[in-house]
Amino acid sequence: MGDRVFSKTTVDYSLYLVTDRDLSLGRSNLEVIEAAVAGGVTVVQLREKYATTKEFYEEGLRIRDFLQSKHIPLIINDRIDIALAVDADGVHVGQDDMPVDVARSILGPDKIIGASAFNVDEATTAEAMGADYLGLSPIFVTATKPELVEQIGIERISSFRESLRIPLVGIGSMNRSNVYEAVMAGLDGVAVVSAICAQEDPRAAAQAIRAEVMKAKSKTTKPQRDPT
Amino acid sequence: MGDRVFSKTTVDYSLYLVTDRDLSLGRSNLEVIEAAVAGGVTVVQLREKYATTKEFYEEGLRIRDFLQSKHIPLIINDRIDIALAVDADGVHVGQDDMPVDVARSILGPDKIIGASAFNVDEATTAEAMGADYLGLSPIFVTATKPELVEQIGIERISSFRESLRIPLVGIGSMNRSNVYEAVMAGLDGVAVVSAICAQEDPRAAAQAIRAEVMKAKSKTTKPQRDPT
Repeated sequence: MGDRVFSKTTVDYSLYLVTDRDLSLGRSNLEVIEAAVAGGVTVVQLREKYATTKEFYEEGLRIRDFLQSKHIPLIINDRIDIALAVDADGVHVGQDDMPVDVARSILGPDKIIGASAFNVDEATTAEAMGADYLGLSPIFVTATKPELVEQIGIERISSFRESLRIPLVGIGSMNRSNVYEAVMAGLDGVAVVSAICAQEDPRAAAQAIRAEVMKAKSKTTKPQRDPT
Repeated sequence: MGDRVFSKTTVDYSLYLVTDRDLSLGRSNLEVIEAAVAGGVTVVQLREKYATTKEFYEEGLRIRDFLQSKHIPLIINDRIDIALAVDADGVHVGQDDMPVDVARSILGPDKIIGASAFNVDEATTAEAMGADYLGLSPIFVTATKPELVEQIGIERISSFRESLRIPLVGIGSMNRSNVYEAVMAGLDGVAVVSAICAQEDPRAAAQAIRAEVMKAKSKTTKPQRDPT
Protein backbone atom coordinates (compact mmCIF):
# COMPACT_ATOMS: atom_id res chain seq x y z
CA MET A 1 0.00 0.00 0.00
CA GLY A 2 3.08 2.20 0.01
CA ASP A 3 2.50 5.79 1.04
CA ARG A 4 -1.26 5.71 1.45
CA VAL A 5 -2.35 7.61 4.49
CA PHE A 6 -5.70 5.94 4.99
CA SER A 7 -6.63 2.44 5.94
CA LYS A 8 -9.78 0.91 4.55
CA THR A 9 -11.58 1.37 7.87
CA THR A 10 -11.27 5.14 7.67
CA VAL A 11 -12.40 5.71 4.08
CA ASP A 12 -14.70 8.68 3.70
CA TYR A 13 -17.53 7.64 1.37
CA SER A 14 -19.24 11.04 1.42
CA LEU A 15 -18.90 11.72 -2.31
CA TYR A 16 -18.05 8.77 -4.52
CA LEU A 17 -17.44 9.46 -8.20
CA VAL A 18 -18.04 6.70 -10.77
CA THR A 19 -16.41 7.47 -14.11
CA ASP A 20 -18.21 7.21 -17.45
CA ARG A 21 -16.36 8.10 -20.65
CA ASP A 22 -19.60 8.30 -22.65
CA LEU A 23 -20.97 11.03 -20.40
CA SER A 24 -17.79 13.06 -19.97
CA LEU A 25 -18.32 15.53 -22.84
CA GLY A 26 -15.18 14.40 -24.62
CA ARG A 27 -12.91 14.95 -21.65
CA SER A 28 -10.62 12.22 -20.42
CA ASN A 29 -11.36 10.37 -17.20
CA LEU A 30 -8.30 12.01 -15.67
CA GLU A 31 -9.50 15.52 -16.55
CA VAL A 32 -12.88 14.86 -14.96
CA ILE A 33 -11.30 13.23 -11.91
CA GLU A 34 -8.84 16.06 -11.34
CA ALA A 35 -11.65 18.60 -11.37
CA ALA A 36 -13.94 16.43 -9.25
CA VAL A 37 -11.26 15.82 -6.62
CA ALA A 38 -10.58 19.56 -6.48
CA GLY A 39 -14.30 19.94 -5.83
CA GLY A 40 -14.39 17.50 -2.93
CA VAL A 41 -14.85 13.94 -4.24
CA THR A 42 -13.66 11.51 -1.56
CA VAL A 43 -13.55 8.18 -3.49
CA VAL A 44 -13.19 7.40 -7.20
CA GLN A 45 -14.39 4.29 -8.98
CA LEU A 46 -12.80 3.76 -12.38
CA ARG A 47 -15.24 1.99 -14.66
CA GLU A 48 -14.43 0.98 -18.23
CA LYS A 49 -17.14 -0.57 -20.34
CA TYR A 50 -15.37 -1.15 -23.64
CA ALA A 51 -11.64 -0.95 -22.97
CA THR A 52 -9.28 -3.81 -23.63
CA THR A 53 -7.48 -5.16 -20.60
CA LYS A 54 -4.33 -3.33 -21.65
CA GLU A 55 -6.17 -0.02 -22.05
CA PHE A 56 -7.91 -0.47 -18.69
CA TYR A 57 -4.57 -1.28 -17.07
CA GLU A 58 -2.79 1.74 -18.53
CA GLU A 59 -5.67 4.06 -17.66
CA GLY A 60 -5.70 2.61 -14.16
CA LEU A 61 -2.01 3.40 -13.70
CA ARG A 62 -2.54 7.02 -14.70
CA ILE A 63 -5.57 7.48 -12.45
CA ARG A 64 -3.89 5.69 -9.54
CA ASP A 65 -0.82 7.94 -9.73
CA PHE A 66 -2.97 11.03 -9.56
CA LEU A 67 -5.27 9.78 -6.80
CA GLN A 68 -2.38 8.49 -4.69
CA SER A 69 -0.86 11.96 -4.77
CA LYS A 70 -4.16 13.30 -3.43
CA HIS A 71 -4.67 10.49 -0.89
CA ILE A 72 -8.00 9.59 -2.49
CA PRO A 73 -8.89 5.88 -2.69
CA LEU A 74 -9.20 4.30 -6.12
CA ILE A 75 -11.78 1.55 -6.58
CA ILE A 76 -11.81 -0.51 -9.80
CA ASN A 77 -15.16 -1.59 -11.17
CA ASP A 78 -15.56 -5.37 -11.55
CA ARG A 79 -12.00 -6.27 -12.61
CA ILE A 80 -9.92 -7.73 -9.79
CA ASP A 81 -7.04 -8.31 -12.21
CA ILE A 82 -6.86 -4.59 -12.98
CA ALA A 83 -7.08 -3.72 -9.29
CA LEU A 84 -4.14 -6.00 -8.54
CA ALA A 85 -2.13 -4.82 -11.53
CA VAL A 86 -2.40 -1.12 -10.65
CA ASP A 87 -2.40 -1.69 -6.88
CA ALA A 88 -5.75 0.05 -6.53
CA ASP A 89 -7.31 0.36 -3.10
CA GLY A 90 -10.13 -1.98 -3.95
CA VAL A 91 -12.83 -3.23 -6.30
CA HIS A 92 -16.54 -2.80 -6.66
CA VAL A 93 -18.51 -5.87 -7.70
CA GLY A 94 -22.05 -5.99 -8.99
CA GLN A 95 -24.42 -8.93 -8.87
CA ASP A 96 -23.06 -10.08 -12.30
CA ASP A 97 -19.44 -9.82 -11.19
CA MET A 98 -17.22 -11.96 -8.99
CA PRO A 99 -18.86 -13.14 -5.76
CA VAL A 100 -17.66 -11.08 -2.80
CA ASP A 101 -16.14 -14.02 -0.95
CA VAL A 102 -14.15 -15.09 -4.02
CA ALA A 103 -12.96 -11.51 -4.50
CA ARG A 104 -11.90 -11.44 -0.86
CA SER A 105 -9.92 -14.66 -1.17
CA ILE A 106 -8.02 -13.20 -4.12
CA LEU A 107 -7.50 -9.70 -2.75
CA GLY A 108 -6.77 -10.48 0.87
CA PRO A 109 -8.01 -8.62 3.94
CA ASP A 110 -6.59 -5.16 3.28
CA LYS A 111 -8.22 -4.23 -0.02
CA ILE A 112 -11.60 -2.53 -0.09
CA ILE A 113 -14.41 -4.60 -1.59
CA GLY A 114 -17.70 -2.92 -2.32
CA ALA A 115 -20.81 -4.67 -3.57
CA SER A 116 -23.98 -3.56 -5.28
CA ALA A 117 -27.25 -4.46 -3.63
CA PHE A 118 -30.84 -3.73 -4.54
CA ASN A 119 -32.52 -5.25 -1.53
CA VAL A 120 -31.72 -6.02 2.09
CA ASP A 121 -31.17 -9.72 1.33
CA GLU A 122 -28.46 -8.98 -1.22
CA ALA A 123 -26.95 -6.44 1.13
CA THR A 124 -26.75 -8.70 4.18
CA THR A 125 -25.35 -11.53 2.04
CA ALA A 126 -22.64 -9.25 0.68
CA GLU A 127 -21.81 -8.00 4.17
CA ALA A 128 -21.58 -11.57 5.46
CA MET A 129 -19.26 -12.49 2.56
CA GLY A 130 -16.85 -9.74 3.52
CA ALA A 131 -17.91 -6.57 1.73
CA ASP A 132 -16.50 -3.35 3.21
CA TYR A 133 -19.26 -1.10 1.90
CA LEU A 134 -22.43 -1.41 -0.12
CA GLY A 135 -23.65 0.44 -3.17
CA LEU A 136 -27.43 0.60 -2.85
CA SER A 137 -28.73 0.76 -6.38
CA PRO A 138 -30.80 2.41 -7.66
CA ILE A 139 -31.94 4.94 -5.09
CA PHE A 140 -33.77 6.74 -7.87
CA VAL A 141 -34.68 5.75 -11.40
CA THR A 142 -34.64 8.35 -14.15
CA ALA A 143 -37.97 9.25 -15.64
CA THR A 144 -36.98 8.06 -19.10
CA LYS A 145 -36.95 4.36 -18.31
CA PRO A 146 -39.09 3.90 -15.22
CA GLU A 147 -40.33 0.47 -16.30
CA LEU A 148 -36.94 -1.23 -16.28
CA VAL A 149 -36.29 -1.44 -12.59
CA GLU A 150 -37.88 -0.47 -9.34
CA GLN A 151 -36.15 2.18 -7.30
CA ILE A 152 -35.14 1.82 -3.66
CA GLY A 153 -36.29 5.32 -2.82
CA ILE A 154 -35.56 7.44 0.24
CA GLU A 155 -38.05 5.71 2.48
CA ARG A 156 -36.40 2.28 2.23
CA ILE A 157 -32.89 3.46 3.12
CA SER A 158 -33.59 3.10 6.83
CA SER A 159 -34.36 -0.61 6.47
CA PHE A 160 -30.88 -1.13 5.00
CA ARG A 161 -29.34 1.00 7.73
CA GLU A 162 -31.00 -1.03 10.48
CA SER A 163 -29.84 -4.36 9.01
CA LEU A 164 -26.24 -3.50 8.16
CA ARG A 165 -23.11 -2.36 9.93
CA ILE A 166 -20.91 -1.39 6.97
CA PRO A 167 -21.02 1.97 5.16
CA LEU A 168 -23.88 2.49 2.71
CA VAL A 169 -23.43 4.45 -0.49
CA GLY A 170 -26.46 5.26 -2.60
CA ILE A 171 -26.31 5.36 -6.39
CA GLY A 172 -28.85 6.06 -9.10
CA SER A 173 -29.84 9.52 -10.34
CA MET A 174 -28.36 11.18 -7.28
CA ASN A 175 -27.67 14.89 -7.59
CA ARG A 176 -27.42 18.06 -5.55
CA SER A 177 -31.17 18.28 -5.12
CA ASN A 178 -31.71 14.85 -3.57
CA VAL A 179 -28.52 13.86 -1.74
CA TYR A 180 -29.39 15.79 1.41
CA GLU A 181 -32.52 13.75 2.13
CA ALA A 182 -30.72 10.52 1.16
CA VAL A 183 -27.92 11.09 3.66
CA MET A 184 -30.42 12.23 6.29
CA ALA A 185 -32.17 8.89 5.74
CA GLY A 186 -29.05 6.94 6.62
CA LEU A 187 -26.55 6.85 3.77
CA ASP A 188 -22.86 7.32 4.53
CA GLY A 189 -22.31 8.79 1.12
CA VAL A 190 -23.59 9.17 -2.40
CA ALA A 191 -22.20 7.85 -5.65
CA VAL A 192 -22.68 9.99 -8.71
CA VAL A 193 -21.96 9.61 -12.38
CA SER A 194 -23.57 12.17 -14.67
CA ALA A 195 -24.11 14.69 -11.87
CA ILE A 196 -20.35 15.24 -12.07
CA CYS A 197 -19.05 13.63 -15.29
CA ALA A 198 -21.63 15.21 -17.55
CA GLN A 199 -21.37 18.72 -16.11
CA GLU A 200 -19.56 21.58 -17.82
CA ASP A 201 -17.84 22.34 -14.50
CA PRO A 202 -17.21 19.05 -12.67
CA ARG A 203 -15.41 20.87 -9.86
CA ALA A 204 -18.33 23.15 -9.08
CA ALA A 205 -20.73 20.24 -9.39
CA ALA A 206 -18.71 18.19 -6.90
CA GLN A 207 -18.48 21.13 -4.51
CA ALA A 208 -22.25 21.64 -4.55
CA ILE A 209 -23.05 17.98 -3.95
CA ARG A 210 -20.39 17.62 -1.29
CA ALA A 211 -21.82 20.62 0.54
CA GLU A 212 -25.25 19.02 0.60
CA VAL A 213 -23.81 15.75 1.91
CA MET A 214 -21.87 17.50 4.65
CA LYS A 215 -24.89 19.57 5.63
CA ALA A 216 -26.84 16.35 6.17
CA LYS A 217 -23.95 14.66 7.95
CA SER A 218 -23.61 17.55 10.36
CA LYS A 219 -27.25 17.04 11.37
CA THR A 220 -27.29 13.28 11.73
CA THR A 221 -26.47 12.01 15.17
CA LYS A 222 -25.08 8.58 14.35
CA PRO A 223 -21.32 8.29 14.81
CA GLN A 224 -19.38 9.08 11.66
CA ARG A 225 -16.93 6.41 10.59
CA ASP A 226 -14.61 8.92 9.08
CA PRO A 227 -12.63 10.80 11.71
CA THR A 228 -11.75 13.73 9.42
CA MET B 1 -2.42 -26.75 -7.37
CA GLY B 2 -3.79 -29.67 -5.35
CA ASP B 3 -3.81 -33.01 -7.12
CA ARG B 4 -2.38 -31.91 -10.46
CA VAL B 5 0.11 -34.40 -11.80
CA PHE B 6 1.97 -32.06 -14.13
CA SER B 7 4.16 -29.08 -13.48
CA LYS B 8 4.22 -26.22 -15.95
CA THR B 9 7.59 -27.34 -17.31
CA THR B 10 6.16 -30.64 -18.53
CA VAL B 11 3.01 -29.39 -20.25
CA ASP B 12 2.36 -31.11 -23.56
CA TYR B 13 1.32 -28.42 -26.05
CA SER B 14 0.75 -30.86 -28.92
CA LEU B 15 -2.94 -30.12 -29.36
CA TYR B 16 -4.26 -26.97 -27.75
CA LEU B 17 -8.01 -26.32 -27.96
CA VAL B 18 -9.34 -22.75 -27.79
CA THR B 19 -13.06 -22.64 -27.06
CA ASP B 20 -15.53 -20.56 -29.05
CA ARG B 21 -19.22 -20.66 -28.16
CA ASP B 22 -20.25 -19.06 -31.44
CA LEU B 23 -18.67 -21.87 -33.45
CA SER B 24 -19.76 -24.79 -31.28
CA LEU B 25 -22.99 -25.64 -33.12
CA GLY B 26 -25.12 -24.98 -30.05
CA ARG B 27 -23.17 -27.31 -27.80
CA SER B 28 -21.83 -26.12 -24.47
CA ASN B 29 -18.12 -25.52 -24.00
CA LEU B 30 -18.06 -28.49 -21.63
CA GLU B 31 -19.61 -30.83 -24.21
CA VAL B 32 -17.05 -29.83 -26.82
CA ILE B 33 -14.19 -30.07 -24.34
CA GLU B 34 -15.21 -33.52 -23.11
CA ALA B 35 -15.27 -34.85 -26.66
CA ALA B 36 -12.05 -33.07 -27.62
CA VAL B 37 -10.20 -34.39 -24.59
CA ALA B 38 -11.40 -37.90 -25.39
CA GLY B 39 -9.92 -37.33 -28.84
CA GLY B 40 -6.51 -36.29 -27.57
CA VAL B 41 -6.49 -32.56 -26.80
CA THR B 42 -3.59 -31.85 -24.42
CA VAL B 43 -4.35 -28.25 -23.28
CA VAL B 44 -7.58 -26.25 -23.15
CA GLN B 45 -7.94 -22.49 -23.27
CA LEU B 46 -11.29 -21.19 -22.09
CA ARG B 47 -12.18 -18.02 -23.95
CA GLU B 48 -15.33 -16.00 -23.29
CA LYS B 49 -16.06 -13.02 -25.47
CA TYR B 50 -19.35 -11.79 -24.07
CA ALA B 51 -19.79 -13.38 -20.66
CA THR B 52 -20.15 -11.37 -17.49
CA THR B 53 -17.45 -11.93 -14.90
CA LYS B 54 -19.83 -14.10 -12.88
CA GLU B 55 -20.72 -16.25 -15.91
CA PHE B 56 -17.05 -16.62 -16.86
CA TYR B 57 -16.21 -17.58 -13.28
CA GLU B 58 -18.96 -20.19 -13.02
CA GLU B 59 -18.10 -21.64 -16.44
CA GLY B 60 -14.47 -21.73 -15.43
CA LEU B 61 -15.27 -23.73 -12.30
CA ARG B 62 -17.16 -26.35 -14.32
CA ILE B 63 -14.44 -26.66 -16.95
CA ARG B 64 -11.69 -26.75 -14.34
CA ASP B 65 -13.37 -29.58 -12.45
CA PHE B 66 -13.60 -31.68 -15.58
CA LEU B 67 -10.08 -30.96 -16.81
CA GLN B 68 -8.54 -31.54 -13.40
CA SER B 69 -10.09 -35.00 -13.36
CA LYS B 70 -8.40 -35.65 -16.71
CA HIS B 71 -5.07 -34.03 -15.74
CA ILE B 72 -5.35 -31.58 -18.63
CA PRO B 73 -4.15 -28.01 -18.03
CA LEU B 74 -6.72 -25.21 -18.15
CA ILE B 75 -5.60 -21.84 -19.51
CA ILE B 76 -7.89 -18.81 -19.17
CA ASN B 77 -7.90 -16.30 -22.00
CA ASP B 78 -6.97 -12.76 -20.94
CA ARG B 79 -8.61 -12.67 -17.50
CA ILE B 80 -6.15 -13.12 -14.66
CA ASP B 81 -8.95 -12.58 -12.15
CA ILE B 82 -10.85 -15.57 -13.52
CA ALA B 83 -7.69 -17.69 -13.56
CA LEU B 84 -7.09 -16.91 -9.89
CA ALA B 85 -10.73 -17.40 -8.92
CA VAL B 86 -11.01 -20.87 -10.46
CA ASP B 87 -7.38 -21.83 -9.74
CA ALA B 88 -6.69 -22.44 -13.42
CA ASP B 89 -3.25 -23.56 -14.51
CA GLY B 90 -2.54 -20.30 -16.29
CA VAL B 91 -3.57 -17.49 -18.57
CA HIS B 92 -3.04 -16.57 -22.18
CA VAL B 93 -2.50 -12.88 -22.91
CA GLY B 94 -2.69 -11.19 -26.29
CA GLN B 95 -1.05 -7.94 -27.29
CA ASP B 96 -4.18 -6.05 -26.07
CA ASP B 97 -4.22 -7.82 -22.72
CA MET B 98 -2.14 -7.50 -19.56
CA PRO B 99 1.62 -7.21 -20.16
CA VAL B 100 3.36 -10.51 -19.46
CA ASP B 101 5.54 -9.14 -16.67
CA VAL B 102 2.53 -7.65 -14.88
CA ALA B 103 0.67 -10.94 -15.25
CA ARG B 104 3.67 -12.75 -13.81
CA SER B 105 3.88 -10.45 -10.80
CA ILE B 106 0.22 -11.16 -10.03
CA LEU B 107 0.23 -14.89 -10.73
CA GLY B 108 3.60 -15.84 -9.27
CA PRO B 109 6.15 -18.25 -10.70
CA ASP B 110 4.09 -21.45 -10.84
CA LYS B 111 1.22 -20.47 -13.12
CA ILE B 112 1.53 -20.87 -16.88
CA ILE B 113 1.57 -17.63 -18.84
CA GLY B 114 1.26 -17.79 -22.59
CA ALA B 115 1.51 -14.80 -24.90
CA SER B 116 0.46 -14.11 -28.47
CA ALA B 117 3.14 -12.95 -30.88
CA PHE B 118 3.04 -12.13 -34.56
CA ASN B 119 6.71 -11.45 -35.09
CA VAL B 120 10.04 -12.43 -33.56
CA ASP B 121 10.35 -9.10 -31.72
CA GLU B 122 7.05 -9.59 -29.91
CA ALA B 123 8.01 -13.17 -29.19
CA THR B 124 11.44 -12.45 -27.71
CA THR B 125 9.99 -9.61 -25.63
CA ALA B 126 7.31 -11.90 -24.22
CA GLU B 127 9.88 -14.60 -23.46
CA ALA B 128 12.11 -12.06 -21.71
CA MET B 129 9.12 -10.86 -19.63
CA GLY B 130 8.49 -14.37 -18.37
CA ALA B 131 6.15 -16.11 -20.81
CA ASP B 132 6.12 -19.92 -20.58
CA TYR B 133 4.98 -20.50 -24.14
CA LEU B 134 4.07 -18.47 -27.19
CA GLY B 135 1.05 -18.52 -29.43
CA LEU B 136 2.31 -17.59 -32.89
CA SER B 137 -0.60 -15.96 -34.62
CA PRO B 138 -1.72 -16.26 -37.32
CA ILE B 139 0.14 -19.09 -38.99
CA PHE B 140 -2.47 -19.00 -41.75
CA VAL B 141 -5.13 -16.48 -42.66
CA THR B 142 -8.46 -17.66 -43.98
CA ALA B 143 -9.24 -16.82 -47.57
CA THR B 144 -12.28 -14.74 -46.67
CA LYS B 145 -10.37 -11.84 -45.09
CA PRO B 146 -6.85 -11.93 -46.48
CA GLU B 147 -6.46 -8.16 -46.41
CA LEU B 148 -6.78 -7.78 -42.66
CA VAL B 149 -3.53 -9.28 -41.50
CA GLU B 150 -0.45 -10.91 -42.89
CA GLN B 151 0.11 -14.54 -42.06
CA ILE B 152 3.26 -15.94 -40.51
CA GLY B 153 3.26 -18.95 -42.80
CA ILE B 154 5.18 -22.19 -42.54
CA GLU B 155 8.45 -20.80 -43.84
CA ARG B 156 8.84 -18.24 -41.04
CA ILE B 157 8.34 -20.69 -38.17
CA SER B 158 12.03 -21.63 -38.16
CA SER B 159 13.07 -18.02 -37.46
CA PHE B 160 10.95 -18.07 -34.31
CA ARG B 161 12.36 -21.45 -33.34
CA GLU B 162 15.94 -20.25 -33.70
CA SER B 163 15.33 -17.14 -31.56
CA LEU B 164 13.30 -18.67 -28.73
CA ARG B 165 13.73 -21.33 -26.10
CA ILE B 166 10.14 -21.69 -24.84
CA PRO B 167 7.48 -23.87 -26.51
CA LEU B 168 5.83 -22.48 -29.63
CA VAL B 169 2.20 -23.09 -30.43
CA GLY B 170 0.82 -22.06 -33.80
CA ILE B 171 -2.70 -20.70 -34.20
CA GLY B 172 -4.70 -19.47 -37.17
CA SER B 173 -6.64 -21.69 -39.58
CA MET B 174 -4.78 -24.78 -38.45
CA ASN B 175 -6.40 -28.09 -39.30
CA ARG B 176 -5.58 -31.72 -40.03
CA SER B 177 -4.25 -30.91 -43.47
CA ASN B 178 -1.64 -28.36 -42.43
CA VAL B 179 -0.50 -29.20 -38.89
CA TYR B 180 2.00 -31.83 -40.01
CA GLU B 181 4.13 -29.37 -41.96
CA ALA B 182 3.77 -26.73 -39.21
CA VAL B 183 5.13 -29.07 -36.53
CA MET B 184 7.83 -30.31 -38.89
CA ALA B 185 8.84 -26.64 -39.27
CA GLY B 186 9.43 -26.26 -35.55
CA LEU B 187 6.17 -25.85 -33.62
CA ASP B 188 5.72 -27.70 -30.32
CA GLY B 189 2.01 -27.85 -30.89
CA VAL B 190 -0.97 -26.40 -32.68
CA ALA B 191 -3.90 -24.44 -31.33
CA VAL B 192 -7.23 -24.95 -33.01
CA VAL B 193 -10.65 -23.43 -32.71
CA SER B 194 -13.09 -24.27 -35.48
CA ALA B 195 -11.19 -27.38 -36.59
CA ILE B 196 -12.54 -28.94 -33.39
CA CYS B 197 -15.32 -26.71 -32.01
CA ALA B 198 -17.20 -26.40 -35.29
CA GLN B 199 -17.05 -30.09 -36.21
CA GLU B 200 -19.96 -32.47 -35.89
CA ASP B 201 -17.64 -34.94 -34.18
CA PRO B 202 -15.10 -33.00 -32.08
CA ARG B 203 -13.59 -36.21 -30.76
CA ALA B 204 -12.81 -37.60 -34.19
CA ALA B 205 -11.54 -34.20 -35.31
CA ALA B 206 -9.18 -34.02 -32.33
CA GLN B 207 -7.97 -37.57 -32.95
CA ALA B 208 -7.16 -36.83 -36.57
CA ILE B 209 -5.26 -33.62 -35.80
CA ARG B 210 -3.43 -35.17 -32.87
CA ALA B 211 -2.31 -38.06 -35.10
CA GLU B 212 -0.83 -35.61 -37.60
CA VAL B 213 0.97 -33.72 -34.84
CA MET B 214 2.41 -36.92 -33.38
CA LYS B 215 3.47 -38.16 -36.81
CA ALA B 216 5.49 -34.97 -37.27
CA LYS B 217 6.87 -35.07 -33.72
CA SER B 218 8.08 -38.63 -34.22
CA LYS B 219 10.14 -37.43 -37.18
CA THR B 220 11.62 -34.28 -35.67
CA THR B 221 14.92 -34.80 -33.89
CA LYS B 222 14.80 -31.99 -31.32
CA PRO B 223 14.24 -33.20 -27.75
CA GLN B 224 10.57 -33.23 -26.73
CA ARG B 225 9.83 -31.28 -23.60
CA ASP B 226 7.03 -33.54 -22.57
CA PRO B 227 8.29 -36.89 -21.27
CA THR B 228 5.07 -38.78 -21.94
